[in-house]
Amino acid sequence: MSSNGSVVALCGGIGGAKLALGLYRVLPPGKLTLIVNVGDDFEHLGLHVSPDVDTVLYTLSGLSDPERRWGRAGETWQFMHAVAELGGETWFQLGDRDLAMHIMRTRWLARGSLSGFMQHAAARLRITARVLPATDTPVRTTVVTAEGDLAFQRYFVERRCEPAVRAVRFDGAASAEPSPEVSAALADSDLRAIVVCPSNPYLSIDPIIAVPGIRAAIAAAAVPVVCVSPIIGGAAVKGPTAKIMSELGTPVTNAAIAAHYHGLIDGLVIDVADAEAPRDAVLPHCVTATLMRTLDDRERLAREVLAFADRLAD
Amino acid sequence: MSSNGSVVALCGGIGGAKLALGLYRVLPPGKLTLIVNVGDDFEHLGLHVSPDVDTVLYTLSGLSDPERRWGRAGETWQFMHAVAELGGETWFQLGDRDLAMHIMRTRWLARGSLSGFMQHAAARLRITARVLPATDTPVRTTVVTAEGDLAFQRYFVERRCEPAVRAVRFDGAASAEPSPEVSAALADSDLRAIVVCPSNPYLSIDPIIAVPGIRAAIAAAAVPVVCVSPIIGGAAVKGPTAKIMSELGTPVTNAAIAAHYHGLIDGLVIDVADAEAPRDAVLPHCVTATLMRTLDDRERLAREVLAFADRLAD
Repeated sequence: MSSNGSVVALCGGIGGAKLALGLYRVLPPGKLTLIVNVGDDFEHLGLHVSPDVDTVLYTLSGLSDPERRWGRAGETWQFMHAVAELGGETWFQLGDRDLAMHIMRTRWLARGSLSGFMQHAAARLRITARVLPATDTPVRTTVVTAEGDLAFQRYFVERRCEPAVRAVRFDGAASAEPSPEVSAALADSDLRAIVVCPSNPYLSIDPIIAVPGIRAAIAAAAVPVVCVSPIIGGAAVKGPTAKIMSELGTPVTNAAIAAHYHGLIDGLVIDVADAEAPRDAVLPHCVTATLMRTLDDRERLAREVLAFADRLAD
Repeated sequence: MSSNGSVVALCGGIGGAKLALGLYRVLPPGKLTLIVNVGDDFEHLGLHVSPDVDTVLYTLSGLSDPERRWGRAGETWQFMHAVAELGGETWFQLGDRDLAMHIMRTRWLARGSLSGFMQHAAARLRITARVLPATDTPVRTTVVTAEGDLAFQRYFVERRCEPAVRAVRFDGAASAEPSPEVSAALADSDLRAIVVCPSNPYLSIDPIIAVPGIRAAIAAAAVPVVCVSPIIGGAAVKGPTAKIMSELGTPVTNAAIAAHYHGLIDGLVIDVADAEAPRDAVLPHCVTATLMRTLDDRERLAREVLAFADRLAD
């Protein structure tokens, strides 16, 4: 629990990758382990696509596109044009540069694990954090909607989160196991804190903690577990978090976020915009600006999150 | 055997695709069937690559790169740069546009045949010729060299045909069968002629006729089988044909080409540069300019080849 200890952060999606980058920049090399959602993974055009893990890799290596918010900077789309020409599916876009990750991963998976590939890729991209898929067992997020069950990417990309969500299911999670690297990171005697990034709780964090071994390890951890709330001013910064909370009949509040992670987190970082809201059900919390526009924002928030965790540990 | 009948041409490589384009342009739509070498096919980065069939598709559809002589015009290489970044193999280049063919083919092959995919792709590219892989059974060309056995692309691309050839082997050919479409094309009652394009006999045509059912069907055909010699002025236009003939101890002559195809062809089209050479062992032949620099050259040669075949049929 020393302030030189290692930190584990759970993340998925773009908001999660932002704080992951902040943590990566403020922590000493080798001290950060990211446990990343794989519920978004799917097979597309015969390739294994891992959107959240790739987002983290591209973000930490400086390769990500800051405008588009997904994929690689300077990306080109010649492949997709040629796929369209041949009558292939074009609802999910794969950039020419990004394709290298999917093709090499798919080939690797014929003989190796997803964790093994992501560690190889992270090393090639000179990333000094451990970027770990939550599990090497396939876990697939299915969104139960008013229009029926939708595989995650069909819901998220093809349908742009339009269908009303009734529930979210993580096929394969109940029998999945954390990878050995994930278990080791959560059991590290040098652990300082566990951070839950301001990712979508339902779509990005739940598929991670739906793996029983991960949930149990976090619940049993002796170090503070702090979550950065994805709510700012009673809404979500981006993405469907608030929309889904409403569809599930949950108020879009920090109390609801705290309740969602009940038994798992020890503290909540909430935004200044929500400081005046009733906090009856809210755990120990710290109030700060959680919107991350600049790189400085990411680093400042990362420092505050770690300081908050250190205070909880005292 | 009417001059409105259908024509079957055997081809592989760049020289073959040139005459294939000439035939395609001078014949009425639907009258040309190309039986294409698949001995060059291989798995690369987990993808099924069919270089010769793709060369024919790109050539007939006008998508091929006239300068580079392989792949697509306007090609970009972002994918390959990203593969290198991730530490992947870069000895065989796959362009961003070209990748669509390999990825869609690989996916198709999980449930369907190579012939089925190539017909789908040809239709999408609005090609009115039938472009048929010789067989749907895997046939793999192995070059037996002074340095040991080399898979075709290792010999051709990685080693640039440098190792001396002692023999060429077509693994899988002896038990391979022509696809139903190939058999039907060779048995067509409307057949006018069978053309062997000026492709490399050892590397492009032999893997086709090494399939027993194809060789037998050609040998038994009632129509003229004419070959356009790849030799011009005692050398080959491009590629390793002459080099391989020398390494195999075969003189680089049209007589040797005729002997190579003995029992299979009825006539040989030879270049004006070789008209004065001794022709003792040469079959019925026709002398013309066989070098194809321009589109006009390709069409003119195609017309002369067909006229020669028609004369042999009379």
